[in-house]
This record gives sequence, C-alpha cells and structure tokens, in this order.
Amino acid sequence: MENFVFHNPTKLIFGKGTIPRIGEEIRNFGIKKVLFLYGGGSIKRNGVYDQVVKSLKRYGVDWVEVSGVKPNPVLSKVHEAIEIARKEKVEAVLGVGGGSVVDSAKTVAAGVVYEGDIWDAFIGKYVIKEALPIFDVLTISATGTEMNGNAVITNEETNEKYGVSSKALYPKVSIVDPSVQSTLSREQTVYGAVDAIAHILEYYFDGSSPEISNEIAESTIRTIMKMTEKLLEKPDDYEARANFAWCATIALNGIMAVGRKGGEWSCHRIEHSLSALYDIAHGAGLAIVFPAWMRYVYRENIHQFERFAKRIFNLEGEGEDLILRGIDSFKNWLKKVGAPVTLRDAGIPEEDIEKIVDNVMLLVEKNLKPKGATLGKVKVLDREDVREILKIAAK
Amino acid sequence: MENFVFHNPTKLIFGKGTIPRIGEEIRNFGIKKVLFLYGGGSIKRNGVYDQVVKSLKRYGVDWVEVSGVKPNPVLSKVHEAIEIARKEKVEAVLGVGGGSVVDSAKTVAAGVVYEGDIWDAFIGKYVIKEALPIFDVLTISATGTEMNGNAVITNEETNEKYGVSSKALYPKVSIVDPSVQSTLSREQTVYGAVDAIAHILEYYFDGSSPEISNEIAESTIRTIMKMTEKLLEKPDDYEARANFAWCATIALNGIMAVGRKGGEWSCHRIEHSLSALYDIAHGAGLAIVFPAWMRYVYRENIHQFERFAKRIFNLEGEGEDLILRGIDSFKNWLKKVGAPVTLRDAGIPEEDIEKIVDNVMLLVEKNLKPKGATLGKVKVLDREDVREILKIAAK
Repeated sequence: MENFVFHNPTKLIFGKGTIPRIGEEIRNFGIKKVLFLYGGGSIKRNGVYDQVVKSLKRYGVDWVEVSGVKPNPVLSKVHEAIEIARKEKVEAVLGVGGGSVVDSAKTVAAGVVYEGDIWDAFIGKYVIKEALPIFDVLTISATGTEMNGNAVITNEETNEKYGVSSKALYPKVSIVDPSVQSTLSREQTVYGAVDAIAHILEYYFDGSSPEISNEIAESTIRTIMKMTEKLLEKPDDYEARANFAWCATIALNGIMAVGRKGGEWSCHRIEHSLSALYDIAHGAGLAIVFPAWMRYVYRENIHQFERFAKRIFNLEGEGEDLILRGIDSFKNWLKKVGAPVTLRDAGIPEEDIEKIVDNVMLLVEKNLKPKGATLGKVKVLDREDVREILKIAAK
Repeated sequence: MENFVFHNPTKLIFGKGTIPRIGEEIRNFGIKKVLFLYGGGSIKRNGVYDQVVKSLKRYGVDWVEVSGVKPNPVLSKVHEAIEIARKEKVEAVLGVGGGSVVDSAKTVAAGVVYEGDIWDAFIGKYVIKEALPIFDVLTISATGTEMNGNAVITNEETNEKYGVSSKALYPKVSIVDPSVQSTLSREQTVYGAVDAIAHILEYYFDGSSPEISNEIAESTIRTIMKMTEKLLEKPDDYEARANFAWCATIALNGIMAVGRKGGEWSCHRIEHSLSALYDIAHGAGLAIVFPAWMRYVYRENIHQFERFAKRIFNLEGEGEDLILRGIDSFKNWLKKVGAPVTLRDAGIPEEDIEKIVDNVMLLVEKNLKPKGATLGKVKVLDREDVREILKIAAK
C-alpha cells in the first residue's frame, strides 16, 4: 500500500430537494455576487434554473449569467466568462450543469485571479495556487468534478484537450440532486457510467493492488453497472439515480486513489484526442479506447486483470483465457448499454489513426512532460503503442 | 437512499515514515505552542515520541506535555489538561496515541474555549461550536476518531461513559503511520478490529439499504477480517496493517453513513455501560453485545440480516435459518480471533445485569434524550429489551 494524503474539503449536499440550499451556502461565505455559469438551457426546462435563482434571491446573492457552455467545453467560452467576471467584480463562480459547466466554472475561477492566459495552466507554464470560491449544482453525474480539484478544457483553435489539477479548484459546496437527472438522455446516462467506471479502472490498473481499494473499486463498478441497467429500463428510478450519482462522485474524489500509484490515465489521455478532434462524448471515446488498451497491456498486470474478470463478471478460470473473457465481457457490457466500442461505431475512419496519434503525442509533449508525467505507468506508451491501441480499437 | 451531507475537512496523512511531518503541518497553521497529550508511555518505547518531538523542534513549535491518558479516558484527566492548556496559553492540542488520547485531545480543545465544565457537552447542556485546532498522530487504528468529530469520555465519579459529536472536533491534520502499530498486543489489534466492524454494522443495520453503501460496508468488513487474521499470524505485516488502518478510518469517517438513517448505535451505547462499570476494552464489550443484539432484533430487518450472512460469510439459503447461521458465524469469528463473546468471558456476573441496565437507562436519560435521540432505531430499546439482550449475552 503506497503512502497517500486524503484531504477533500468539498462540502457535498446530496439528495432530493437540496438545490434550494445553494443561496444560503454561498451567503455563508459572505459572498454577495457570483458569476452564474450554465450550458445550453436544459436547466431552464427541468426547473433547476428557477430553483437556483429563487434561492439566490432569497439569500440576497446577486448574479451575472453566462450561458452556452458546451459539452467538451472550450477555452473561448472560458475567456469570455473571465472577462465578464472581472468587469462585474463577482466574488465567486457558480456552475449549474454537468461536468463541462463545472470544469469551466473552475477554470474561470482560476483565470479571474491570474494575470496571464489561464491556458498557461494547461500547458505547464503556470501552477494554479488560487482561485475565486467555486460552487456548483451538478445536473449530470459522470466526471466527479463536484468533489475534486480537476478541470478539463479544449482549446478549440489548436484541437488540444488538456486537464489541470489544483487544491484551489475543489468546490466549496456542491449540490447533487439525483432526481433532476431523470430527464437525461439514454446517451448521457450511459456515457456518465462509462466515464465513472473508467476513472475507477485508471486507478485499478496502475500496478498497485491494495486489498481495500480493490474491494471498494469492485463494489463501485458493480453498482454502477447494475444501476445503469436499471436506469435504461426506468430513467426516473430515484434509488438507482442516487446510487449512480454517489458512485460517480466517489469514482474520482480520492477514495479510489488510496494506497495506489496515482492512476494510469493512458485511456483518458488518448480519449481526449478523440473528443478534441471529433467532438464526440468523452464517455463514448472511453468506451472505444478502454477495451483496446486492456487488450494491449494486460500482460504487464496479469494478476489484476484476472481479479477484474473474477470480481466484476463472476468468471472462473485463470491466466490469459480468463483475462480475455473478462475484457470481452466488459466490451459486451458497453455494447449492451449502447456505447460505441470501435472507432467505426463513432464514425471515425481508420485512416485518421495517424492524425489521432499526432494529437496524443502533442498532449504528451505539452501537457504531460511539463509535469514530469508519462503516458501510462504500468506500461509507458510511445507513439507506436498508441498507434497499435487505436488499431485494435478501429473495428 | 436518504439525503445526506458529506463534509470531512480533516487532512489525513497516511503511510510509513509520515510522523516527522507533524511539525510542519502544525506550523502551517501559524501555531507556535501546543498541548502535547499522550498515554502511558508506549510512544516513548516505540520511538513515536522522539519522532514527534524532533519534528516540533525542527519547525519551531513549542509544547507542554500532559501524559497518563488511560484507555476509557476519564474526565478528571481532561480537566487537568484543560487547566494546564489555559495556564500555558497553548494555541492547539496535539494528541499522540490511540483513540483514548485523541478523544481526550478533542475534549480538551473544546473545553479550553468553554467557560463551564466541558462535561456539559456530554449531557446536553452545551453544544460544542468551537475548539482549539486539533492535531493527532494515531498509534492504534480502531475508533476512527482521526477523521471524524466524535469523542467519548468517561466521568469516573458517576460511571457515565458518553459521546459527543461536533463539526469543531474534526482534527485539522491526522497522521497515521501503520508501521508503528506492529508492536501492538494481540488484544489491541483484535479489539480495534471489532470496534471498526461494529461501526460499520451500526450503519448497516439501521433500516436503510442503499446498494453502494451496502457494497462498501461489506468490502470493508471482509477486508478487516482478512487483515486481522493476517496480523495475528504476523503482527509486522505492513500491507495488512495499512489495509486495516484505512478500513478503521473509513468505518467512521462518513462514508458508511451515506444514504443511511444515521446508524443504529444501540450496541455502542450498551457497551459504554460495560466499559464504564468494568473498565473492559470497548472492543471486548462490543464483541459481547453485538451478537446478542443481532439475535434479539433480526426480525425487524430480515432482508439486511440475510444479506449480511451471504455477503460476509458466503452462506447460502434464506430466512431465519440463514440469518442465525450468519450471526453464529460472526460470533464464531470473534471467538476465533480471541475476543470475549459473553459477559462470563469478560468476568462479568449475570447477577450484575440489573445494574448494567440501570446504567444504560441513565445514558438514555442524560445523553440521548437531550438530543432527542432514542436507544436504537430499527428497534427502539426500552429497559426490558436491554435486559433481554444482556441475558442473551450472559453465557
């Protein structure tokens, strides 16, 4: 078991009817004016917007709105919001929406207090040490951003989709009301499930194997799979939504990292190139990359892949045969719930592989190298490896 | 799934060789003088004292020592330490030891800033809203106090052992180095295991049944049992100590409470009377009370008791037969690892039952009623019920 520090200061308020608490929570910090960031307007249709606005008014919190944050959120929108936040002298940023909105809110909060271009933080030229206080009302459970210090943004001018991580980016307060997620599309639910499972697997396969973290990872993956199947049958099953939502939170709030080596993260990085270049959903990209990566690297981590097959899919046996059945079972489950599992499924032609590889290697150069990080740990991937993984993922 | 708030601000530093970080962590809060509280001197024998003192010196943190905190820590020692803390104008309290030391440190930290007698907080006459900053180096994993806002103290004049809970009692920083626990006695390890398992079961059997919290509870109990058996074979198995230590932390840091009804806590309360009256180890008392309580109440919570038997002991079947085999398996496991499972095993005569019942009912009156709480939830226990449970536990 590796040494670790567990320190997650976010206050997470979870459950039915909790959104009206947002105004009081913000006011408790003595904050009188926020930047209120949201997406394409679904929060106006499902009543979340009204709940938030009513609460802000009730507790005397003034706000300035910036809407139009897209999935795979872009840098230009962040720049726009930073400018407005500065002009309007807001004291905090409130994101209301899914992971894209909250990641944008975090980046804006850091950008407001940084003189240069906040993109510097994504390419190793600036380390985020401070940010305006961040609050959010989460409406799609998937990325875990509601309880961590991570943000991922796409620079759409250069097709670079990079992540950043900082203690200053933990939300002060996050509100998760799973009942508002009953109107999500089938795809949003499934891609959320894939994203959360992928977060857990990035840690699970990083070469470490602490028993309690293995047990908790397996517990959480099994629960996500079970709840996803229930939600595809009955999207407004509150119990399933609530279980799903908490699983997505703990998939990336530090619990899964306990006693491990920091996570593998190759699949996330390769996926970022897919969604940067083709604007596909992150969860869709992960469903394509993960099984291919597993097939390519399992020999480096035999015992853990055997365990995965046994504990997640109840398979028996041992060695390569067991492992390959485990990976196939995972791929089949992804297919069953409706995720694409090949580049072809997502309409990405095999001829593009070289272009994707170039984009991944650019990420290695600009986002990982400045942090002293490599692409992968159990198996450090070079250009050739990435190409082979994408070939496996092709069809 | 019940609504909940998850907010645990403690920074937990975990792993081999982490104790020398204590000075810097305290200094980071701008603190220059602490009350350094510890127990019977085992920290001098195992080198922990030297590591702490060296670190405090290195970072320029001055200290005043109070030693002699006993297991089942007593109010008189807390009073003594509060007086010294005030006289010496310390800015924080540092507990170095097991749960008794840390609970005492918390109570002292709250007592220093309260004009009256801090015992008031244990009998509902005062609500703790503030305390000096609390730091600790934990040397026995059991109670989970290193990552929560709870403290339990015995008023030895009146034989009252009561608990208190406050946001202000979360340690700022806790350090857990599992390697220093390799010198613990067999009993200390076993009673720590029983305490941690009991914390999980108090939540598990409170009438709620959220899938993810069930899964995580079962994962953690299985891991504690496995690691306890390993440690009885090989007390210096670091991997087992580390897994055990983290399990004990998460058993009572809020994770197990997610989506539940606040926990049952009858067994803990009944046990507090045993350790108040007979000064037995808390873990020993729990091993006596828990199986008896399970036998007495399982009819109120059939499905969850069936699940317990299946998931913890891999038993098959259903209904009462399955449940009773599950409870027996638990009792047998407790026996196997060397815990007492009857009052007789602990040398407590059956004739004392009425005296114990009186003490429990006093706790209900003085500690629970002021908070509007009852003894138990799934089954609220009255005098008669407590008597019956103790009779089952007798021999």
